[in-house]
Amino acid sequence: MDIAALLTSAGINITVCVVLFSFYSVLRKQPSNVNVYFGRRLASQQAKHIDLCLERFVPSPSWILKAWETSEDEIMAVGGLDAVVFVRILVFSIRVFFIAAVICTILVLPVNYHGQDRIHKNIPFESLEVFTIENVKEGSKWLWAHCLALYVITLSACTLLYFEYKSINHLRLLNIFGSPPNPSHFTILVRSIPSSSEESYCQTVKRFFSHYHARTYLSHQMVYKTGTVQKLKDDAEHMCKVIRDVSVRKTCKSSFGPCCYPGFARNSFKKISSEMDSMQGKTAGYNNMHLETGKKDCAAAFVFFKSRYAALMAAHVMQTSNPMLWVTDAAPEPHDVYWSNIRIPYRQLWLRNIATVVASIAFMLVFLIPVTFVQGLTQLDKLQKMLPFLTGILKEKLVNRLVTGYLPSVILVLFLYAVPPMMLFFSVVEGSISRSARKKSACCKVLYFTIWNVFFVNVFTGSVINQLSVFSSVTDLPAQLAKAVPAQSTFFTTYVLSSGWASLACEIMQFFPLLCNIVERYILRHKEDALNGNLSFPYYTEVPRILLFGFLGFTCAILAPLMLPFLLIYFFLAYLVYRNQIINVYITKYDSGGQFWPIAHNTTIFSLILAQLIALGVFGLKTSTVASGFTVPLLIGTLLFHQYCRKRFLPVFKSNSAQILIDMDLRDEHSGRMEEIYEQLRSTYNQPGVTEHASCNHECCGLHLGKASGESSEDMEKGLRKEITQKNRPRPVQRSLSLSSDKAVLGVN
Amino acid sequence: MDIAALLTSAGINITVCVVLFSFYSVLRKQPSNVNVYFGRRLASQQAKHIDLCLERFVPSPSWILKAWETSEDEIMAVGGLDAVVFVRILVFSIRVFFIAAVICTILVLPVNYHGQDRIHKNIPFESLEVFTIENVKEGSKWLWAHCLALYVITLSACTLLYFEYKSINHLRLLNIFGSPPNPSHFTILVRSIPSSSEESYCQTVKRFFSHYHARTYLSHQMVYKTGTVQKLKDDAEHMCKVIRDVSVRKTCKSSFGPCCYPGFARNSFKKISSEMDSMQGKTAGYNNMHLETGKKDCAAAFVFFKSRYAALMAAHVMQTSNPMLWVTDAAPEPHDVYWSNIRIPYRQLWLRNIATVVASIAFMLVFLIPVTFVQGLTQLDKLQKMLPFLTGILKEKLVNRLVTGYLPSVILVLFLYAVPPMMLFFSVVEGSISRSARKKSACCKVLYFTIWNVFFVNVFTGSVINQLSVFSSVTDLPAQLAKAVPAQSTFFTTYVLSSGWASLACEIMQFFPLLCNIVERYILRHKEDALNGNLSFPYYTEVPRILLFGFLGFTCAILAPLMLPFLLIYFFLAYLVYRNQIINVYITKYDSGGQFWPIAHNTTIFSLILAQLIALGVFGLKTSTVASGFTVPLLIGTLLFHQYCRKRFLPVFKSNSAQILIDMDLRDEHSGRMEEIYEQLRSTYNQPGVTEHASCNHECCGLHLGKASGESSEDMEKGLRKEITQKNRPRPVQRSLSLSSDKAVLGVN
Repeated sequence: MDIAALLTSAGINITVCVVLFSFYSVLRKQPSNVNVYFGRRLASQQAKHIDLCLERFVPSPSWILKAWETSEDEIMAVGGLDAVVFVRILVFSIRVFFIAAVICTILVLPVNYHGQDRIHKNIPFESLEVFTIENVKEGSKWLWAHCLALYVITLSACTLLYFEYKSINHLRLLNIFGSPPNPSHFTILVRSIPSSSEESYCQTVKRFFSHYHARTYLSHQMVYKTGTVQKLKDDAEHMCKVIRDVSVRKTCKSSFGPCCYPGFARNSFKKISSEMDSMQGKTAGYNNMHLETGKKDCAAAFVFFKSRYAALMAAHVMQTSNPMLWVTDAAPEPHDVYWSNIRIPYRQLWLRNIATVVASIAFMLVFLIPVTFVQGLTQLDKLQKMLPFLTGILKEKLVNRLVTGYLPSVILVLFLYAVPPMMLFFSVVEGSISRSARKKSACCKVLYFTIWNVFFVNVFTGSVINQLSVFSSVTDLPAQLAKAVPAQSTFFTTYVLSSGWASLACEIMQFFPLLCNIVERYILRHKEDALNGNLSFPYYTEVPRILLFGFLGFTCAILAPLMLPFLLIYFFLAYLVYRNQIINVYITKYDSGGQFWPIAHNTTIFSLILAQLIALGVFGLKTSTVASGFTVPLLIGTLLFHQYCRKRFLPVFKSNSAQILIDMDLRDEHSGRMEEIYEQLRSTYNQPGVTEHASCNHECCGLHLGKASGESSEDMEKGLRKEITQKNRPRPVQRSLSLSSDKAVLGVN
Repeated sequence: MDIAALLTSAGINITVCVVLFSFYSVLRKQPSNVNVYFGRRLASQQAKHIDLCLERFVPSPSWILKAWETSEDEIMAVGGLDAVVFVRILVFSIRVFFIAAVICTILVLPVNYHGQDRIHKNIPFESLEVFTIENVKEGSKWLWAHCLALYVITLSACTLLYFEYKSINHLRLLNIFGSPPNPSHFTILVRSIPSSSEESYCQTVKRFFSHYHARTYLSHQMVYKTGTVQKLKDDAEHMCKVIRDVSVRKTCKSSFGPCCYPGFARNSFKKISSEMDSMQGKTAGYNNMHLETGKKDCAAAFVFFKSRYAALMAAHVMQTSNPMLWVTDAAPEPHDVYWSNIRIPYRQLWLRNIATVVASIAFMLVFLIPVTFVQGLTQLDKLQKMLPFLTGILKEKLVNRLVTGYLPSVILVLFLYAVPPMMLFFSVVEGSISRSARKKSACCKVLYFTIWNVFFVNVFTGSVINQLSVFSSVTDLPAQLAKAVPAQSTFFTTYVLSSGWASLACEIMQFFPLLCNIVERYILRHKEDALNGNLSFPYYTEVPRILLFGFLGFTCAILAPLMLPFLLIYFFLAYLVYRNQIINVYITKYDSGGQFWPIAHNTTIFSLILAQLIALGVFGLKTSTVASGFTVPLLIGTLLFHQYCRKRFLPVFKSNSAQILIDMDLRDEHSGRMEEIYEQLRSTYNQPGVTEHASCNHECCGLHLGKASGESSEDMEKGLRKEITQKNRPRPVQRSLSLSSDKAVLGVN
């Protein structure tokens, strides 16, 4: 592949991007698309009315300006900490690759270009390989330039990583401390409650926590089974109850007439009904409530505590001497709960975990088949041998350039679109209890997958077994990589061009929602905005994408510096596009609190280590002992830096610190807000499909609740009424948190 | 090597063992050796007077009977849970290798022996290789026997492991619940206290904990610097003080005469003395106490809490948002504290950890040199080529047998004696805060070391680089092992004979203490028992030894079943010898609470997995697809079993459960023992080298102490007096815990 082919590819991509961005700037002005491009604004009722005028059909760069001007505080208010972290990853990439691009263009590129003593062709017809490290001759004294560039890149990356980690750490703490009272801080999730023949799960939970956490236990809420079968059963029970009530009222008979009921499972109905009868005596006065008592509760419950610190404690400590019983975890935020996974018996989880890992690895290996095919396209001569009838077409220059420079990436991208849903499915099976944890887990899986499939598989072309055999000889890995990576660097350059730039254009165009919208509006002629507020930011696809390009950038920086300008443009476009999307399109339903940063940090460190290993291999192949000698301390230094960051920053992302929670508790106690918070707590965790969650509380916990917070039954009724009004209220996503305030309160160093 | 050579080796070893055991039975009856062989009994004042009669000089098996008859309750009372766990490891080994020996002798040995169609020699002249799996011909249909034996061994080992883990788990819980109030349950160790220019560490600790843990904080005790330099400085200060006191009393001058003091560092003395002066005003009435206030405190402290649960909480939760500050850990038991490591700045620890790992690996690799030499001895023909002058001697049959059957193991054993002290040193450098944690860490290191050096290095004979290259090709490992292990199984058989049996004889003879005793008594003519009570059980050398033999047994069981009877005898002897030593010799100063069991469990699982991998390789080499097909599910099953045990049992060994601690708190509260326990707490953590630990308490914490437990100053003085009387009392090692009681109270399932 020569410079001309690369420029063809770049030209196509630039054209596509410019066209699509112009289209976008027009489409976004159309009132009919407002629910596609302004979903978030619609949801928060801020969308302004757009007039019908000529301006609507003229492309304009106004959205770029808006995206550029938005401050971090606004992003935080609109998209939560996750959005800020995402933008920070982009900013970090721009910074570090700017430095890399400068040093590599000044220092490495000339060394590569003049590496061999030969007469150079005209630049456009120069092969791309002339610009890679492959062109440097063996034993060259100029390899110190590459080593120096590696040092500069590593040191700047580590410095930037450190300050970013520190700052995001600080933001996270501010976010926790400055946000309004979060019910999840007062709540733990208890799973694997031991079953007992004498009492229900609800009673067991109450007994356990009011004995062992008497001073801090507030109340609890059971998790119910709400599968389809369970629903049918519940409906049947409900019917049975209604019919019985009617028949009791009408005929005043207390015994069951055998013909009153629909035929099936009569005996079980009888049993349940007689149980209900006995309960009815106890819970007289709740005429409609006890309809729900037949609902089966799972061995899981949310337990509420009187202070954040107590909940933290209970979540972190093994409750009983059997670690498989009374398993406690910090509860996710109410909107973040993944209800169907909470109902999974805890004993299955470790098996599910193992099964998911095995399935993911199997999926990664099966996926090699399309990738191997794609790889074939970049080596046209092989393809011509396999499919001789193509020879005629492939001889045409434009077709040749298209096929080698563009097609492989497109095919790869199309295949890769199938991966995230699959990985998300695996993460669901795994049993994550929160949506954000599920997406984080999927993000890691997609990341491993893309790095494996885009990088390693392309580098070590061949069958599955060949690729595995590369990894089986660990000590030879640097040398193998050193041979293979520079050869593949042109492919990665085109990959950045095609996949990277095109993905941004697709992202901003929102093809799928746009299509749906058109179908809805003009074919089905629906009036309502069906898509309104349904889209949340797909971090699990976008974070791995960004990190993959960073990974390619680090590993190829000193080997094929020609990639860096394209990468820099990609990151800059991404910065604009994603900011625009965060502001206008995506709705933040739940926030993981910046959990994506540690992933980004680890990936960057891994990229640096791999880049150093490859450099070590290359320096070895080129017999430059000085350069390899200098790379080893860099490698050790990077590993030590990583270890330090793990010790210093990571624990904050794993759990909250006692100090902050106690400070928050004290603040709320002094301001007298605690009672109000307790009141709110009871109504926050609403299980979908369970119409009246309070049934258990009335049965076994009402007494305790009243006692705990010292309130009368009137208060309780008031609470219930409040609850009902709150239930359908959308969650307040706008956080009015100013990042610059509260710093003095927190005193984080 | 043939059967005759093996029997020669066995004969020598049996003779040595019988002679040494007889010697022991005589020597132990001599009054002069009572402090060598009855150290523990002497310490607990139970040694009976031995009469001078003829019986003293006749060997007798009475010690064997005594060792056999001692019950587990007695072992628990005498040696703590660690001793029970150690005996359990032996019992487990005896059981599992009994099953293995039976199945392998009945099933595997005949298959191996008749594996090839050839005329057998007389059994004594039969080569040992005829009894190994090497003798089975390729494609044999009898390999299902080996596969079946592997199944039986794995299943019985897993079943036994499960029940042992469960039972030891139970014992550990009983031990925690049934023991007298343990000060370490109320205490946490805080390290990395942030330094402040305004207040001392002591004041910082007090401020922090009385603010954030106001309800549960009791008091604290600083850790002081007591290095040699610090001691010299302290002594100088003390001298200065004494001289000043004298001079003040004599001349009634308050200013310092420049000639009163020894010359060096006068200015610093002046400064310190003036500080003391100012403090003297505040703490009037404690005339001698303030001598110690000049002692520098470290950024570490023991903090006492009012309940066990509160201490558990504080130990497990990140205190502040900077995880490198206010690092909390559960405190070790008072006698278990490793004081000099507590003073290590916490920031060094992660670096020390990495350095220790690197150093241990380096040491393991350097140690290959003697091992390679030893390995040369078993291949005599090679040695004869290298050293031709030996040919004459080596041709003699007895010398040949000695050299091939005995000498290599002896040399290896001698070299291995140097390893445990080295690993213990590494564990000290690593920074373990307790003696038991240090020994546990050393135990793991010694274990890795011995398994690596005895097994892998002997299997893959050759230079360091050759051995590493074996591991670099991971996928070939089973095949490589399958080739190498059966060939080396004869060496391992002799290793069990020589190293195993001889080590037991050495253990019971206690050569080194015996020699010291003789030198003391008959050459230096000392009268006191210098050794009395100095020996604690060296778990970090004995646990790895036992586990190594188990490891060899599992890996060689189906390959060379001839080893199993010798191994069984070894374990049986070990059972008797170690029980005797626990009862009579070793003193239990601290107890890790059965922490050695998870190590034993993991090692056994590793041994099983490796045995299965080797079997897989062997079946592959012998082209028996059925047998290899059946081994794969066994491998997966074993891994799943291990994962289950990790989930089910391991957490109990990592931390205490809330339920048990709260139950204990409630029990003590109801019985009104809490005040007494608080009283005791203040005097338990006595730092050696710090004569009066209470100095800090008087300075900044006395007020809080009094307030916290609501006691008057009279009570405090009473407490101090009690403290002094308790200080020199030996630790109560006898636990009167009956294992069968308390089960109902605990209700563990």
